Amino acid sequence: ADLLTSPILSWAPSTVLALQCLLSGSWRSDTGCRMVVSVLSKDGRFSGSYLPGPAAGNSEILTSPLEGSQQDARLVPHPTFSFIVHWQLRDSDTTRTTAFLGQCYTGTNGEETLHALWLLREAADSPAEDWKATRVGTSIFTRIK
Amino acid sequence: ADLLTSPILSWAPSTVLALQCLLSGSWRSDTGCRMVVSVLSKDGRFSGSYLPGPAAGNSEILTSPLEGSQQDARLVPHPTFSFIVHWQLRDSDTTRTTAFLGQCYTGTNGEETLHALWLLREAADSPAEDWKATRVGTSIFTRIK
Amino acid sequence: ADLLTSPILSWAPSTVLALQCLLSGSWRSDTGCRMVVSVLSKDGRFSGSYLPGPAAGNSEILTSPLEGSQQDARLVPHPTFSFIVHWQLRDSDTTRTTAFLGQCYTGTNGEETLHALWLLREAADSPAEDWKATRVGTSIFTRIK
Amino acid sequence: ADLLTSPILSWAPSTVLALQCLLSGSWRSDTGCRMVVSVLSKDGRFSGSYLPGPAAGNSEILTSPLEGSQQDARLVPHPTFSFIVHWQLRDSDTTRTTAFLGQCYTGTNGEETLHALWLLREAADSPAEDWKATRVGTSIFTRIK
Repeated sequence: ADLLTSPILSWAPSTVLALQCLLSGSWRSDTGCRMVVSVLSKDGRFSGSYLPGPAAGNSEILTSPLEGSQQDARLVPHPTFSFIVHWQLRDSDTTRTTAFLGQCYTGTNGEETLHALWLLREAADSPAEDWKATRVGTSIFTRIK
Repeated sequence: ADLLTSPILSWAPSTVLALQCLLSGSWRSDTGCRMVVSVLSKDGRFSGSYLPGPAAGNSEILTSPLEGSQQDARLVPHPTFSFIVHWQLRDSDTTRTTAFLGQCYTGTNGEETLHALWLLREAADSPAEDWKATRVGTSIFTRIK
Repeated sequence: ADLLTSPILSWAPSTVLALQCLLSGSWRSDTGCRMVVSVLSKDGRFSGSYLPGPAAGNSEILTSPLEGSQQDARLVPHPTFSFIVHWQLRDSDTTRTTAFLGQCYTGTNGEETLHALWLLREAADSPAEDWKATRVGTSIFTRIK
Repeated sequence: ADLLTSPILSWAPSTVLALQCLLSGSWRSDTGCRMVVSVLSKDGRFSGSYLPGPAAGNSEILTSPLEGSQQDARLVPHPTFSFIVHWQLRDSDTTRTTAFLGQCYTGTNGEETLHALWLLREAADSPAEDWKATRVGTSIFTRIK
């Protein structure tokens, strides 16, 4: 909020674009999950929650905490970001962690899109099981208005 | 140090194993880089540095900061961990970030090994370049005595 | 062939669905490239070409050969497939190869979609460069009518 | 065999190096599996088998067919290769396919090593399950004498 009322920024029309692609807010993934990201700290860090969406139909996942950081959106048009989700699972002691690594793009209509690749590790019971511990995929997030 | 002198732990021989696989300390990767990890906070967070090693011969990379967390090493034999490195590059404004996701294993000789997969993103200039922004690989770290 | 002439199947309109998700034909990727796949052999093998599309604007890539195979589309609703593209590049001797691994899905409207993850290797000059040789990503293909 | 007895090659000591890194033969992976690769065809194609090794202790996997190709080992010192394994599993109808993409390196002692990244897809039952279908990892193979 104080960003928007800052005297410097209110004088600079060119910063309107730069104020986009801040990860703060609510996002929906292409698999129907929701993500809520806190206000960013001065150095770009954030925390938040990853929630199963209505479309997911997967009640196994509970609301799970995430932490990450993003590159300064006032300095670059397509800031990169990274965050880690520690999954909270119903009826399971298995440790699952996902590392997301991505970049925010703004379309010609001003719509922000997060493009991310992720690695998901399910804790292996032994070194001999390590080879199959990691999945890979992509996620695309759009802002929930 | 206070862990080792704690009265509870000094009474419990079975915790000797559990005290391994704390990421704090110095590690060498299979590509000859070094990593120094801080003492872990109570909730498992750490910071540190990633350094090009003598074997790397790659002066492009400067000492780069890392941040991450690990699962409680006193509760599980092979704790998982994740950390993010924001690369500092000589003569380059390119933003490069690596997300490591892995697990610590202890050999029969007590030697700790970190097995990790990583994603490395080099910031894309535009959405059309996004498809080729991400590399993938594995790293194995052993503790530097 | 005997499937198609089987009395049971010839009476069953529901097998029309099963005949979908044969990879033969022309496809467009979400990055604007085109792919042309030959008629499949009896054991599911195919060859074809990968072409830069009009949307790609990347004249570096020339029409490149591909080879692969798919699981029997008449036996499963979402057959898996794999194929390899050996890239032909203008003004470059670099060897680049992509391995695609995916699955075909049919929407409620009958539209076929190919979901694939890929690894792209650019030949490393030496073992010391091997760690950065491989990129990862996803592609989605839809059939060109 | 006729390569080795070819008059041209027997006159040219410099080609001794070039004859290495042909994938034909038997290999052991760092996870204890064995791989047997056929003589390469003139255009670099090969077939073969992937076998669970004695160290694997995983009787779930049966000997599984593989097919692939490699870059001409007589033209480049570190030829790239790719191959696909269609897994044969005991007591399972699940379709699993792995795409390997890698490069062969020759050490100073003449020992050949294959460095590969792979994607392993387990067929998803529906598009909603597709996001978690793919695992990623690395394999290192050394030749069995």
